[in-house]
Amino acid sequence: MAGDREVEILEAAIDVLRETGYDRLTFDAVATAARASKATLYRRWPHKRDLVIDAVGLFIDCPAEQDPDTGSLRGDLLAQACADGGLDDEVVIGTWGALLPVIHREPELARGIHERFLAPKIEATRTIFEHARERGEVGTDADLDTLLMILPSLSIHEALLSGRRPGPDRIAEFVDTVVLPACAATVAPAPSTR
Amino acid sequence: MAGDREVEILEAAIDVLRETGYDRLTFDAVATAARASKATLYRRWPHKRDLVIDAVGLFIDCPAEQDPDTGSLRGDLLAQACADGGLDDEVVIGTWGALLPVIHREPELARGIHERFLAPKIEATRTIFEHARERGEVGTDADLDTLLMILPSLSIHEALLSGRRPGPDRIAEFVDTVVLPACAATVAPAPSTR
Repeated sequence: MAGDREVEILEAAIDVLRETGYDRLTFDAVATAARASKATLYRRWPHKRDLVIDAVGLFIDCPAEQDPDTGSLRGDLLAQACADGGLDDEVVIGTWGALLPVIHREPELARGIHERFLAPKIEATRTIFEHARERGEVGTDADLDTLLMILPSLSIHEALLSGRRPGPDRIAEFVDTVVLPACAATVAPAPSTR
Repeated sequence: MAGDREVEILEAAIDVLRETGYDRLTFDAVATAARASKATLYRRWPHKRDLVIDAVGLFIDCPAEQDPDTGSLRGDLLAQACADGGLDDEVVIGTWGALLPVIHREPELARGIHERFLAPKIEATRTIFEHARERGEVGTDADLDTLLMILPSLSIHEALLSGRRPGPDRIAEFVDTVVLPACAATVAPAPSTR
């Protein structure tokens, strides 16, 4: 299959996935959306899991995975979230919302999604937090893996609840009122409230 | 239908929901799990949406919705999360994980789940944060609705990713490293890191 045609089919798969969820996604629906034959799809992807894993592979190398390097953690996080492929990208957040509840049910799906989608995103975000640590915005002993999950957790949870992407203002609010205070606390702990 | 029998069927519905997700939940599966006839189920619940809304109604009045009143925000949040019906309750987090990605697709389901499940949980958590505000652990102008979503967002996101409940230690980590710093920042803002 020519590369462009394959991308069209994978984009159709993403559309169907966002609309119906993984469990209700069928080759029939993807074939219709892509104006392809089901036989063509089955030849390339034996199981819908394979189709979905390749489809999320489309999000690799998106702008949100480049290091924005704005000079501040706040700037970097907002630039990343608001770039194509970031947390405020309706396609990405819809896809992730459709996959999140099913991935732990199928180990092979989980592994594929992790490799093709999650790992690159986490790595790009980790780089941002490592730069913040070098600048002293995050403490040397801070648990970066927890800190880097705050913004995706809040954004995705709210998006799933509302059915809408959070929007840049709400993302900035999450950064200012939750992420940055959590980071600041790893540098100079705030007075204990316990 | 006698009350006890109805509860048995609703509990079976929760089991099926957690295992298969909402889209794949069928009256057949619930009838089998509850050793009931499909006709019995259809008489009481015309649509699976009604069955699921009544099923999550089982979580009302659970211990996690009582005001724990331990004297600190940290104590209250941990007591609530670790009580039956709280964020570390495998049944609740599994149910919520199964519903979160579908609720915005069906307005009637969304309304029912909000009334029977979300609203009571949010109200109970809001009370905890209002008490924290009275004690000065949270600033008078703080956005409680954002603060109260931090712990559920982190816990549920991690549970969906891993397929496991977070566990009391991880919940305490979220409270100590994210929730309390965000609250402290509303009282005496930490030095700006921008």
